[in-house]
Amino acid sequence: MPDATPPQPPQQNAFGVLLGLRIDRTEAGVCEAHLETRPEHFNPHGVMHGGVLFSLADTSMGAALYPLLRSQESCATIEVKMNFLKPVTEGKLRCETVVLRRGKTTAVLESKLHSGESLVGIALGTYAIFPRPA
Amino acid sequence: MPDATPPQPPQQNAFGVLLGLRIDRTEAGVCEAHLETRPEHFNPHGVMHGGVLFSLADTSMGAALYPLLRSQESCATIEVKMNFLKPVTEGKLRCETVVLRRGKTTAVLESKLHSGESLVGIALGTYAIFPRPA
Amino acid sequence: MPDATPPQPPQQNAFGVLLGLRIDRTEAGVCEAHLETRPEHFNPHGVMHGGVLFSLADTSMGAALYPLLRSQESCATIEVKMNFLKPVTEGKLRCETVVLRRGKTTAVLESKLHSGESLVGIALGTYAIFPRPA
Amino acid sequence: MPDATPPQPPQQNAFGVLLGLRIDRTEAGVCEAHLETRPEHFNPHGVMHGGVLFSLADTSMGAALYPLLRSQESCATIEVKMNFLKPVTEGKLRCETVVLRRGKTTAVLESKLHSGESLVGIALGTYAIFPRPA
Repeated sequence: MPDATPPQPPQQNAFGVLLGLRIDRTEAGVCEAHLETRPEHFNPHGVMHGGVLFSLADTSMGAALYPLLRSQESCATIEVKMNFLKPVTEGKLRCETVVLRRGKTTAVLESKLHSGESLVGIALGTYAIFPRPA
Repeated sequence: MPDATPPQPPQQNAFGVLLGLRIDRTEAGVCEAHLETRPEHFNPHGVMHGGVLFSLADTSMGAALYPLLRSQESCATIEVKMNFLKPVTEGKLRCETVVLRRGKTTAVLESKLHSGESLVGIALGTYAIFPRPA
Repeated sequence: MPDATPPQPPQQNAFGVLLGLRIDRTEAGVCEAHLETRPEHFNPHGVMHGGVLFSLADTSMGAALYPLLRSQESCATIEVKMNFLKPVTEGKLRCETVVLRRGKTTAVLESKLHSGESLVGIALGTYAIFPRPA
Repeated sequence: MPDATPPQPPQQNAFGVLLGLRIDRTEAGVCEAHLETRPEHFNPHGVMHGGVLFSLADTSMGAALYPLLRSQESCATIEVKMNFLKPVTEGKLRCETVVLRRGKTTAVLESKLHSGESLVGIALGTYAIFPRPA
């Protein structure tokens, strides 16, 4: 579906750097990413803030969709719904994302987040696909 | 509905500090919060990362619900769905949150985020309410 | 934003007829609708099935968006998230829907459902806007 | 996790009968269900109304969760978010549901809906688990 020369994703992700997000692998419609728990990820209840899990999922969704874009296309998050299944307090938080459907102007994606063997979060989201601004 | 002596919210919100979140006002079932755009909030597309908006909404939801808890209760995010309506590139991001329903074991909340006069995000979420761990 | 001659909504809504849905008022970006509780709306727990509330909200969203479409445009539901706040067991179920944002290819809408004075459901959804098939 | 004698699900599902829903298989945490397209399922655009897909998913979620309840417990939908990936116009609509997490007072579930080989809908939802009213 993508052109022979898919667009290169932008290189600077300031917010990802702030959180310590790492993209481990992307290919057409798939992304694996992770982050290591840091003290600054915590909320007042002593567990990882939901916004950290959300940010990892949202970033991974963009990374999974990027290889499916044509050279003149860009994308943006329309909406994401995330369920938080278990608190995360330490260690590596891993995220696996798949594109469930790539339409002409929208895509639907799902991310599953694991801490150790536990499913700790799941996100279902929609992205817009549109012509890249000139 | 809350006891005469509602629980004091935990004081340290490391992730909120990392992002620059500010709670401006909370009362029973309501919260107003904001953050000022910072370079480290940006995603590779040159706009504020969706995770920043989500984190502001999620934090505000907890703050709006807190005054409705009894002294022996705590709360946690079950799930949040957020729509991103317009990109945010500068200035103050404001968030107004209301508790739509406070049940015995769950609460439903809504957050609206504005940049200037524009509605830039809206979140609808569910929180769990449970006995505070001893 | 709409043309001088907005498209006429299709007249036959077989599923709406099956459920007894009634559109009371539509104008640009707004819809009021309702249905009267019927025995066939009930789930095994003796309350109105969530699918009935969802169907009322989804139908109302389409009706609220329709007057904002240009004559050559059509729309379809991308996704809807709905919270169920209280069980409905009798009487009139009313739904008020507003278009929160009408973009070029998507729209974001919210529906609030009331039974008597009680907020019993709230839905936040996204619609696709696209050229009408020839 | 469930008792030796899980509660029998209520037998009458008036709304399921109205729509023609069929539960094909349930076991602890899993449900397979389907319905055959009927003329009264259609919306004005000539495709199956989103409310029909939603109702199939919501009903299946309850059926998947039921075998995990203890004899004195009941459940209810807190919220469901559903994405509509492709229009359904004919044939059998199948739904596979799994319980992703069964907590003490809530459960998280996912339903995938297929028409033929196509994924046409996906739903992510939360259920409340509570003591059965006496």
